[in-house]
Amino acid sequence: MKKTSIFILFWISPFFLHANDGYKLWLQYYPFENHAIATYYRDYLENTKLVGESATHEVIRNELNTAFKGFFEKEPASQLVSEGDNALLWIGKIEDLPKDIRAQLGNKNTALGEEGYLIRYIKGKVILSANTDIGLLYGTFALLKKIQTRQKLEELNELENPRIQLRMLNHWDNLNRTVERGYAGFSIWNWHRLPQHIDQQYIDYARANASIGINGTSITNVNANALVLTPEYLEKAAALADAFRPYGIKVYLTARFNAPMVLDNLPTADPLDPNVQQWWKDKAKEIYSYIPDFGGFLVKADSEGQPGPHNYGRTQADGANMLAEAVQAYGGIVMWRAFVYNEHTPTDRIRQAYDEFKPLDGKFRDNVIVQVKNGPLDFQPREPFHPLFGAMQETPLMMEFQVTKEYLGQDTHWVNLASMWEEVLQSDTYAKGQGSTVSKVLDGSLHDYKLTGIAGVSNIGTDRNWTGHHTAQADWYAFGNLAWNPNQNIEKIAEYWIRMTFSNDPEVVQTMKGIMLNSYEILVDYMTPLGLHHIMARSHHWGPGPWVTGGGRDDWTATYYHKVNNDSIGFDRTETGSNAMAQYAQEWKEVWGNEENVPMEFLLWFHRVPWNKKLSTGNNLWEEMALRYQKGVEGARWMQKEWSSLEENIDPGRFNHIASFLNIQVNEAEWWRDACLLYFGQFSKMPLPPGVEAPKHDLNYYLNFKRNFVPGI
Amino acid sequence: MKKTSIFILFWISPFFLHANDGYKLWLQYYPFENHAIATYYRDYLENTKLVGESATHEVIRNELNTAFKGFFEKEPASQLVSEGDNALLWIGKIEDLPKDIRAQLGNKNTALGEEGYLIRYIKGKVILSANTDIGLLYGTFALLKKIQTRQKLEELNELENPRIQLRMLNHWDNLNRTVERGYAGFSIWNWHRLPQHIDQQYIDYARANASIGINGTSITNVNANALVLTPEYLEKAAALADAFRPYGIKVYLTARFNAPMVLDNLPTADPLDPNVQQWWKDKAKEIYSYIPDFGGFLVKADSEGQPGPHNYGRTQADGANMLAEAVQAYGGIVMWRAFVYNEHTPTDRIRQAYDEFKPLDGKFRDNVIVQVKNGPLDFQPREPFHPLFGAMQETPLMMEFQVTKEYLGQDTHWVNLASMWEEVLQSDTYAKGQGSTVSKVLDGSLHDYKLTGIAGVSNIGTDRNWTGHHTAQADWYAFGNLAWNPNQNIEKIAEYWIRMTFSNDPEVVQTMKGIMLNSYEILVDYMTPLGLHHIMARSHHWGPGPWVTGGGRDDWTATYYHKVNNDSIGFDRTETGSNAMAQYAQEWKEVWGNEENVPMEFLLWFHRVPWNKKLSTGNNLWEEMALRYQKGVEGARWMQKEWSSLEENIDPGRFNHIASFLNIQVNEAEWWRDACLLYFGQFSKMPLPPGVEAPKHDLNYYLNFKRNFVPGI
Repeated sequence: MKKTSIFILFWISPFFLHANDGYKLWLQYYPFENHAIATYYRDYLENTKLVGESATHEVIRNELNTAFKGFFEKEPASQLVSEGDNALLWIGKIEDLPKDIRAQLGNKNTALGEEGYLIRYIKGKVILSANTDIGLLYGTFALLKKIQTRQKLEELNELENPRIQLRMLNHWDNLNRTVERGYAGFSIWNWHRLPQHIDQQYIDYARANASIGINGTSITNVNANALVLTPEYLEKAAALADAFRPYGIKVYLTARFNAPMVLDNLPTADPLDPNVQQWWKDKAKEIYSYIPDFGGFLVKADSEGQPGPHNYGRTQADGANMLAEAVQAYGGIVMWRAFVYNEHTPTDRIRQAYDEFKPLDGKFRDNVIVQVKNGPLDFQPREPFHPLFGAMQETPLMMEFQVTKEYLGQDTHWVNLASMWEEVLQSDTYAKGQGSTVSKVLDGSLHDYKLTGIAGVSNIGTDRNWTGHHTAQADWYAFGNLAWNPNQNIEKIAEYWIRMTFSNDPEVVQTMKGIMLNSYEILVDYMTPLGLHHIMARSHHWGPGPWVTGGGRDDWTATYYHKVNNDSIGFDRTETGSNAMAQYAQEWKEVWGNEENVPMEFLLWFHRVPWNKKLSTGNNLWEEMALRYQKGVEGARWMQKEWSSLEENIDPGRFNHIASFLNIQVNEAEWWRDACLLYFGQFSKMPLPPGVEAPKHDLNYYLNFKRNFVPGI
Repeated sequence: MKKTSIFILFWISPFFLHANDGYKLWLQYYPFENHAIATYYRDYLENTKLVGESATHEVIRNELNTAFKGFFEKEPASQLVSEGDNALLWIGKIEDLPKDIRAQLGNKNTALGEEGYLIRYIKGKVILSANTDIGLLYGTFALLKKIQTRQKLEELNELENPRIQLRMLNHWDNLNRTVERGYAGFSIWNWHRLPQHIDQQYIDYARANASIGINGTSITNVNANALVLTPEYLEKAAALADAFRPYGIKVYLTARFNAPMVLDNLPTADPLDPNVQQWWKDKAKEIYSYIPDFGGFLVKADSEGQPGPHNYGRTQADGANMLAEAVQAYGGIVMWRAFVYNEHTPTDRIRQAYDEFKPLDGKFRDNVIVQVKNGPLDFQPREPFHPLFGAMQETPLMMEFQVTKEYLGQDTHWVNLASMWEEVLQSDTYAKGQGSTVSKVLDGSLHDYKLTGIAGVSNIGTDRNWTGHHTAQADWYAFGNLAWNPNQNIEKIAEYWIRMTFSNDPEVVQTMKGIMLNSYEILVDYMTPLGLHHIMARSHHWGPGPWVTGGGRDDWTATYYHKVNNDSIGFDRTETGSNAMAQYAQEWKEVWGNEENVPMEFLLWFHRVPWNKKLSTGNNLWEEMALRYQKGVEGARWMQKEWSSLEENIDPGRFNHIASFLNIQVNEAEWWRDACLLYFGQFSKMPLPPGVEAPKHDLNYYLNFKRNFVPGI
């Protein structure tokens, strides 16, 4: 077989014939660097036998063709899929493979699940197999990824099953095509043209998702419009479901809890009212008549103005169970969000979901899964993991990550969200002793959940590159990868993404990986160091707003969370304060409960700390805060400098776009630093320590800085 | 030199390696069909000398490079622009060309205007020259078009000046990125990222516009938000102006007439109030400090709720002149829209603009131009030309066409708007005797206007192909061409567009041209035959609504316009009716005034006609109407069939997209026919004549057919 050496042959300088707007995501399939590598893979790709027939097989055939044209810049010489039996690459379900090929797999396929695949190199052949069509499609993308990242096929010997059943995108897309917390333009769902026009973008959306293992999509905003449950929209949703089906993606809808009242004038939406229950049963039947494999409902209830069971004195379980009963006969599920809080509840907002749901553990129907945000507040740059993880032994919980960056720089900041997600996934709940990580809760192994899931709030929009920032594609990519296996190595994820999306050039890979793996701490430093949280501007959350106070809801202000005064700053969540800490295991109380040894990143999350308190770094609190902000700014500048070194290695379109956004990121990092230090400095009354740059403007400038029509609301 | 024969060599079957989403518009620069043709043009493109330096020269250099990479699928072998003096293609301003080259031009350049160019083939060389940088850019696009459409360079001998000074796009784009009457997604102006991020799409927008001679763009909705006049937005508009400047495109803004009240709390916006006048002068000064070559204001006043001089008992001239005075010192102009009408005015709506503006002829300042829609109503599928054309000898008038298809099928119908525009442009006003065409009014030759202009309401949005329908790109293209020279042959325009955008394959050219040149009459037949008008659905204007009646404004209903009853239908605009016809020349009164010889297409526009009236076709009115609707449907089906014959000749992405929209068009044509005939048939009480298909549903179905969130409002 081929020698390893071709992989380290000379590097041909990049050649940017075609403008690259990023639309192809990580499925670029750009040409090989040299002839030897091309020849090596070509042997396999020109001698491929795809066994079997189905809509998904057609997808596989198209994908192989697309990849071939990209890799070799021409059409396959003959039929891509050879008719002969001397193929070097076999793709087929176990049951479809010829006996001799199947025999070569031996008993290696017994661990294959419904969606899993295996790829093995045996006696000069690559065999890709699975139990299902979808497994084959996942395997095909896995194999193409090996080629995209220039891995040797002789070493292939893997069997992969997803660790988590429901791997979902949540679109907060409104029917008028605005996207709540969307920063990449508008909704890609063109409802008006549906059901008649199926745009290529829907297909490419499904391709991209299937390539990273996503198998469900909730296509409408959790702040739901009941209209989506009417025939007008069900017909449209069904057209999307039809388009997505060959890619293994099910459609879910958000259910507005008072839909029976809105759509059919029922006098109540009380979940224990028989008429209401019947309404939902009829509605479920209707939905399944449009979409036979409809996934189920995603529900935001009793939260931020959404109606819910509380309106009728019922519990979250009452509400969820009613909907679950309606869809159960059809195999549907209900994802019931735990993001429930109320400004009239006289406790710390971050306590409320736990206080509400913990007593309901075990009270949900089998086809309900409770969807919990990663942290107890709301997608802040850094939060401790949500205390419900580990606390619900009898009720399946799924994770809700926010892939769109509401609080993390929105469209223009480059931050590798996988770093944040890994931190949460690997957090130990201690629910069953050491090693009871959140990832084990999610994959069901800790509490033997029958349903498992992970959802990501989509960052996709009409921007030509899907995600606004080219690098935000990496968050979508990483989300899918972690949903498939929450224990995956995020450095590897980043590396694969870079290689598939930009280049296998080692300089590109190393430099971009360096930026990505450092980007998260840099952002936390210039935005919310030391456990600060929710100090963004009001409502749109773009830019700093540590001064935000008053207005309709105290728990939507910054001062509620940092409680600054001339002596100190921070939210006491220990026993002397809100005691939200009590919702965590004893092991964490010992780590977080003590102001002296709490990790610095959660200092002000859990404690109220005097400005002049001396910290382990030798600085007092004020100095430490100021230096962290400065460090964040310097980090952003470092990212910019690193990126600029790649000018010759990246196509001009994407290079310039990212450079332009990095410029904005540096400016906004300085804005954050200057605004927050000027504001907090009024209270600390201490000067900026050496090394921290003077602010560009005075505090009034920042207080009065207002922009109209900030996106995402 | 090369022989002609290479142009008729064998045709290589198309090769669709790269997905084509249409983003490149008519600047596809796809590869040549065969080696001989490629070699022929390559001699010139590899031996090009670009003389001089400017930002626009840089644009020219980039465009030549882009074209080269497209044509030849590789980078230019050496420097695209040769340093040697033996170049075969010379590009440079007259004053910059070497003496010997300039001498070869002889005295052929004396007719060159500010924006004109010449391209001549002289003694084995192609010489492209102009007086200005922009002229050179226009010439470069003209030359590339010759190559794109495979014309022989030896025959080049042209000198082109634009016939019209202001060639403008009007974007009805709101600051929240919705687009009024926009059907191609949302506004491409990402205000939030401006001024810092200049997206490649802005550059490509400028390239596309420059390639067809557009030299101005009004970037905000005529239903204006005063915020665009604040520093926050002026800074952003200035960034766009900077990006567009090298392409010869000036930025204009819409001015909300009561901005002094909205922004600075002035007690009045009375145009004769000195404080108001001073406010606008200060505002103009401020704007020019951001945008030194700011083009001026576009104003919608006293119309559909917009504030205006009427609010203070002043005339349209008073309002326009105040703004004109404010910008005059800086070279700015005011485009004042004549689309002024009021539901409280007790005359036929279509009379009102003429009645209002005609008495003001000669009362406007020199830097005002009055912008008049093509017809007196509102962008209907077919209207007679606006009677103001020819009626304002002392006041420059400019044309406002609607490139976006508010009333002509919106995003999904294929209709070649150039056919409609040509009809208007070539209409004879008889203002100075026979031959006083609208195009002569517009180019200033009829009345010796010092300012000339033509505006198109943009059809551009965030859709990946810019215009929603791939074929709507042709409307943008044709608009630019007709703005440059309103007498251009629209068949040629269509042909060039097809060749540049899709293919030089004769089968593609012939088939698409056939569809395009027939599409307009087809649409009129299935939508508003026989002079019917304004029978679209309420508010969003999507689909039929002949039954629309009542509500706040009578002049926004269908019944106001068709006045159907059991005896007859139509609007009497002769002397026995509203006498709107009196606004036209005597010659037209003779043609249109007589029910017996009025051209069929304006029958119900000018006359009230009994259902049983026998027409020249031998059918009575009802039969004729029904047969026209049927003919329109059959025309749409014919378009679909024609298109399907091109499956092998067009890339699959665009082929399928257009096929999908044609399917919608056929369905909607049937919807129009069925809904209108069922509705009007209630009054005619006659059966459908033979050959007209029975409706698919009953009238109630159509009356109750409602869709939410129809785009464009």
